[in-house]
Amino acid sequence: METQFQSELLDAAVTELSRLPGIGGKTALRLALHLLRCDTSVSDALGNAIINLRHGIRYCSVCHNISQEEVCPICASTSRDASVVCVVENVRDVISFENTGRFNGLYHVLGGVISPVDGIGPDRLEIDSLIERVAKGNVREVILALGATMDGDTTNYYIYRRLAALGTDTTITQLARGVSVGNEIEYTDEITLGRSLEGRVPFNTGF
Amino acid sequence: METQFQSELLDAAVTELSRLPGIGGKTALRLALHLLRCDTSVSDALGNAIINLRHGIRYCSVCHNISQEEVCPICASTSRDASVVCVVENVRDVISFENTGRFNGLYHVLGGVISPVDGIGPDRLEIDSLIERVAKGNVREVILALGATMDGDTTNYYIYRRLAALGTDTTITQLARGVSVGNEIEYTDEITLGRSLEGRVPFNTGF
Repeated sequence: METQFQSELLDAAVTELSRLPGIGGKTALRLALHLLRCDTSVSDALGNAIINLRHGIRYCSVCHNISQEEVCPICASTSRDASVVCVVENVRDVISFENTGRFNGLYHVLGGVISPVDGIGPDRLEIDSLIERVAKGNVREVILALGATMDGDTTNYYIYRRLAALGTDTTITQLARGVSVGNEIEYTDEITLGRSLEGRVPFNTGF
Repeated sequence: METQFQSELLDAAVTELSRLPGIGGKTALRLALHLLRCDTSVSDALGNAIINLRHGIRYCSVCHNISQEEVCPICASTSRDASVVCVVENVRDVISFENTGRFNGLYHVLGGVISPVDGIGPDRLEIDSLIERVAKGNVREVILALGATMDGDTTNYYIYRRLAALGTDTTITQLARGVSVGNEIEYTDEITLGRSLEGRVPFNTGF
């Protein structure tokens, strides 16, 4: 027996599954044995979906969101407001904002945030293409919507400086920071609570 | 936008990944986006490994372990003791026993245990084939190695009765039950401790 799990095919499946993030050897074996018990159509569908995913998806040439076309459906939509651009870190963030159903502008996916610790500088992100997009002059507002982390703040500030240097009359906004909807005051951390106080707004019955 | 995640291909991958046990929608999306960032060779290897697994693996006609041939490498081996058969619940158990490096007999994979609660009767398991295998007369010992659970005990007992009724001189043994290696006495449950006392053995310096 030179194989680890009685069969080269099972070995291969376990090896490949355990390359996925958060999936260790034991989980990979459990998943592979589950697939063995499934109908062939189920495992074929999974295998083909994974292969087709990587071959069929590319990135939108405008906003760098995932897309199956040269330009993604959001950028290509005529019913969206192309003068508002929401700057996000990654594709998951686009999905999150789309799920709110409260945004009708376009996106710009940076592909990460500036992180000196991880060696990620501005040149590794889609920042130049954002500046070019705004420099063309049709963007009324840029919403900086990066995570409320130190790296997110650094990146927001870096982009703000670059955009301000353009001299266009684009408004630059950022997401409101405050108490999460549904959260109790007593369980909200002090920094968030402090910011929500500083950033207080006129009472609003519309929500 | 009729798609959930900006692309039918991503939707398909997330849907198929989330069919796997223990993988919910959020994890499936995270895995799919990870695959998108990987090199094409990585996602192709995973997809193909999954497809090939299900098409290439069948079950050994003797012991019902997974196999790529009619008879698995363990049953086909000439260096193993074919007169000792270890009865296990599933393929994972075969892997566990093989990993101990302390068993040189053959296996018989039942494919489950008798479970009245889940509606699994003896006819749904590979018990008849075990009885036939022993009835042929070349089996010196059958080791009942099912889990130390109520269903495992029930199944052990059912098989014991069927084997005893054969009238062959096969020895029927079961796994020793006692304190797990590395466990403290004070943290061992009472039933296990009681059994380890009842089943005490002459002091042995060989381990």
